[in-house]
Amino acid sequence: LSEIRIIPIEGVPDVLAGDDVALLIVDAAGDGTLLDGDVLVVTQKVVSKAEGRILPLDDKSAAIEAESKRVLRVGRTGMAISETHHGFVCANAGVDESNIEGDNIALLPVDPDASARRIRARIKHLATVDVGVVISDTFGRAWRLGQTDVAIGVAGIHPFVDHVGGVDVYGKELVATRIAIADELAGAAEMVMGKAERICAAIVRGAPAVPGPGAAVQIVRPAQDDLFR
Amino acid sequence: LSEIRIIPIEGVPDVLAGDDVALLIVDAAGDGTLLDGDVLVVTQKVVSKAEGRILPLDDKSAAIEAESKRVLRVGRTGMAISETHHGFVCANAGVDESNIEGDNIALLPVDPDASARRIRARIKHLATVDVGVVISDTFGRAWRLGQTDVAIGVAGIHPFVDHVGGVDVYGKELVATRIAIADELAGAAEMVMGKAERICAAIVRGAPAVPGPGAAVQIVRPAQDDLFR
Repeated sequence: LSEIRIIPIEGVPDVLAGDDVALLIVDAAGDGTLLDGDVLVVTQKVVSKAEGRILPLDDKSAAIEAESKRVLRVGRTGMAISETHHGFVCANAGVDESNIEGDNIALLPVDPDASARRIRARIKHLATVDVGVVISDTFGRAWRLGQTDVAIGVAGIHPFVDHVGGVDVYGKELVATRIAIADELAGAAEMVMGKAERICAAIVRGAPAVPGPGAAVQIVRPAQDDLFR
Repeated sequence: LSEIRIIPIEGVPDVLAGDDVALLIVDAAGDGTLLDGDVLVVTQKVVSKAEGRILPLDDKSAAIEAESKRVLRVGRTGMAISETHHGFVCANAGVDESNIEGDNIALLPVDPDASARRIRARIKHLATVDVGVVISDTFGRAWRLGQTDVAIGVAGIHPFVDHVGGVDVYGKELVATRIAIADELAGAAEMVMGKAERICAAIVRGAPAVPGPGAAVQIVRPAQDDLFR
């Protein structure tokens, strides 16, 4: 039975600028917890903290403007739906103030795929395991209420599982089925993290992610193909 | 350690019009497999088959038109992004031809929330367990490439986990964090289903879904609040 397990990593301490997130996670997980082929999902917030992407709350408007390549829409509450410089479309260009000490805001990492690659390399060094890494953030969606976690950084796995060209159980060719598994991994991990607990990392074990080079920017739909940008 | 398990249910036979999907799933899962508090995720395709929502491929264009309340956009390949009568926004109003015998297409269930409630009630009767039910389908997204599974039917759980009004680890009030857990459950379950295998149902055990009455139509963003409709 090929079941999947989603295992929260408890006990990661508060992350501060300059901290080695991979080391804190490996220490909290304990020896032998991470296994080859696991996908480690880490929340954007701790990565941003470690990378010093924190500003005073007073700078929020300026930060949203600076983090936005352009603004797609502004809602009635003043919240902007922005495209970030990475190409992600999200509220306030990913700038937010939850789960940060004091009157501060966090910005997205400058290059979350690079952050994911660094964490993956560091874990390989520290724990001698080959894991995929997904950096997750909580995004709203067009047409659907509520938010889900999606991947803003990926390393060590393909962000998609591709059924294009495969056949279904009746032997018919499957067209246009390309699962964004990095996003499903992020969403699955969110379920063990909650928002009010100090869980910033989770292991997903047994998922059908394909090992190899991959990046979250591959998930960004090119503007010229985007019917809703 | 509050981990989550995602368990595929193998051995469900081909589903035909009039079949009792809940019975087929309970039989395949085996006695004692489903537990109180589990969420059972069932793919739309088998629910549509059981409900006879199958038409000849020749009727595809007419079916897409009939299933669409309106068309938001038409892509270069001719694929319509439609709003269904339920309010879901998806490709071709959810009409598709994968994993169906012969030259046929499947339409979405007429009322997937009612389908979910029927499956839930039937499982309660057959297996004496109180489970949440999510009916999942594979949808594309604005701005992001690839598809993920989302909930089109829900029963026995709230579709959201609401952090609005809660506080984060620093005691600050969390605003605007409402996780669409029904969608995360559907996406998580997709990872054990694949597309080319005969897995049409999975158990998610340990997820923080809140038991109670709930429906997938609650996830539909009202048109008047929707900046991208």
